Amino acid sequence: MSETEIAKLGEFGLINELTKSIKLQNPSSLKGVGDDAAVLDYQGKKTLVTTDLLLEGVHFDLTYVPLKHLGYKSAVVNFSDIYAMNGQPKQITVSIGVSKRFTVEHIQELYEGIKLACEIYGVDLVGGDTSASVTGLIISITCIGEGEEGKIVYRNGAKDTDLICVSGDLGAAYMGLQLLERERVASAGMKDFQPEFAGKEYILERQLKPEARKDVIKALADAGIVPTAMMDVSDGLSSEILHICKQSNTGCRIYEDRIPIDYQTAVMASEFNMNLVTAALNGGEDYELLFTVPLTCHEQIAAIDSVRIIGHMTKPELGCMMLTRDDNEMELKAQGWNSLA
Amino acid sequence: MSETEIAKLGEFGLINELTKSIKLQNPSSLKGVGDDAAVLDYQGKKTLVTTDLLLEGVHFDLTYVPLKHLGYKSAVVNFSDIYAMNGQPKQITVSIGVSKRFTVEHIQELYEGIKLACEIYGVDLVGGDTSASVTGLIISITCIGEGEEGKIVYRNGAKDTDLICVSGDLGAAYMGLQLLERERVASAGMKDFQPEFAGKEYILERQLKPEARKDVIKALADAGIVPTAMMDVSDGLSSEILHICKQSNTGCRIYEDRIPIDYQTAVMASEFNMNLVTAALNGGEDYELLFTVPLTCHEQIAAIDSVRIIGHMTKPELGCMMLTRDDNEMELKAQGWNSLA
Repeated sequence: MSETEIAKLGEFGLINELTKSIKLQNPSSLKGVGDDAAVLDYQGKKTLVTTDLLLEGVHFDLTYVPLKHLGYKSAVVNFSDIYAMNGQPKQITVSIGVSKRFTVEHIQELYEGIKLACEIYGVDLVGGDTSASVTGLIISITCIGEGEEGKIVYRNGAKDTDLICVSGDLGAAYMGLQLLERERVASAGMKDFQPEFAGKEYILERQLKPEARKDVIKALADAGIVPTAMMDVSDGLSSEILHICKQSNTGCRIYEDRIPIDYQTAVMASEFNMNLVTAALNGGEDYELLFTVPLTCHEQIAAIDSVRIIGHMTKPELGCMMLTRDDNEMELKAQGWNSLA
Repeated sequence: MSETEIAKLGEFGLINELTKSIKLQNPSSLKGVGDDAAVLDYQGKKTLVTTDLLLEGVHFDLTYVPLKHLGYKSAVVNFSDIYAMNGQPKQITVSIGVSKRFTVEHIQELYEGIKLACEIYGVDLVGGDTSASVTGLIISITCIGEGEEGKIVYRNGAKDTDLICVSGDLGAAYMGLQLLERERVASAGMKDFQPEFAGKEYILERQLKPEARKDVIKALADAGIVPTAMMDVSDGLSSEILHICKQSNTGCRIYEDRIPIDYQTAVMASEFNMNLVTAALNGGEDYELLFTVPLTCHEQIAAIDSVRIIGHMTKPELGCMMLTRDDNEMELKAQGWNSLA
């Protein structure tokens, strides 16, 4: 890869380089990069806005995360927040801060990943900001999406008899991170180190290149289901279900044996001698959808392949509990990842 | 001031502390902080989106910038971008990254400034992200605003006979920065240093607590004027007028003796032995509005106190020129501040 100093292009040159190939796809994107603000047209729809700040050394480690994957993931985690409102992501703005060790080619690689995610999910990159940083890479993405009147799903709408559902499986991204960390430590100082990743592709992909559950939102819409409450699982199932219970003023009861876990996640947890359910409950970065539906939706939900019913809401005085495999009741606690703790 | 470690509150505690007093003011703000995304309703209007990334050590120096001022300025510079589209800012999201040397009280001070700006400009704080950072303070703000169909002003609509107008005066924020820098250097290592700021309040305020020209947008609307092109002056008049000329495919001719400059700016430039016009052309951070209007608007523009006509557009082949006081023609060059150069 050739190396071009960013200073050679300057801010406008760099922005031009990164955005010259961008074509707007959505009718709601009237004007993208190149003015003081982007112009959008959400007539007849509600506008959804979410934002995420990702910092090198806190949220990602470039010793094992390829820049293209990082770009992809940075965009997708924002799309996930819009899907979690039962909406459709339509535009993003991307602000980056880059220190002197990054070249134009590095930033292009990062943007390749962002653009790929935009292409796959049908989202337009409409603006941003580019700046020097004193240390490391900073990525701040804001995603704007649309939601239909009456179909936007908040965290506070769950009723105390609702079913609790989750898409995909949990804990894989966390075990992928453990694996990457182990190999990073093992490789320290070694020149031709070959990490042991065979048979562990799934958990690595879950960590490095997660997807947002656009497909689940579509399946729910096709089945005519509007969840009563919904969130995406970014900090861990435990933490998220507690948010929904608190905001909906309910308790909950989930069943350990119903928590969906992939076999690679299980194998990895056993290799690490870690508690598998703890990883699934608190691991985070799954970007699956956690939602509640009325009891009457039971059959339709059961017919959706990628969704599992893991429990039900209860009256708030019953607390937030998990029934374990050995029939014990355990209180759920938020022990998910927290950069500020 | 008491000191509370941020780790004591954690992310959700901190967000709660910072946002608990926020009341939404705009009918378009349906749902603010507290879900996966904010929900806005821009029915019948276009949505404008702009974003800015501000980094400690690059965009601000906390040795002389109070956190409350920094918060105020961070918000206002985003509002300025929305006004520069002839729109009204309505919502912001605020993401911050904070290193361990910051306490909860520090971040509250920063937020006080952000909230004050929101109150004064009628903007709702509807979301954000909060994270630990490895070094220093990171502020990423996205502002969403509304624009009326047919009244949004881009950079590319100037015609080659239009008048060039600018609000307020230029170069003051830059001279304020020079003054702050001088006093910072002079105070290095001294304990009871008293900086010499008497009679220089205006240029300091322009640097530390700039305002966005909501009043000018209103004056233009009251006069029934929709500019043909507009930008806010953040990187310097020279740089911005070149953007408008390039995007509108015109040249321009501005007159040195018509560039509005405050006397404190002039005094300071003379103290520093700096070229005053260079400061006014390239200083940046003025957050004034630069815009073009058809010749026929001459009288109405002349009647607006805070706006000055500084020149006119020309055919592109005539280039972008300034006529100096001694009747020489000088080519305008973009020499504004660029963190990546």
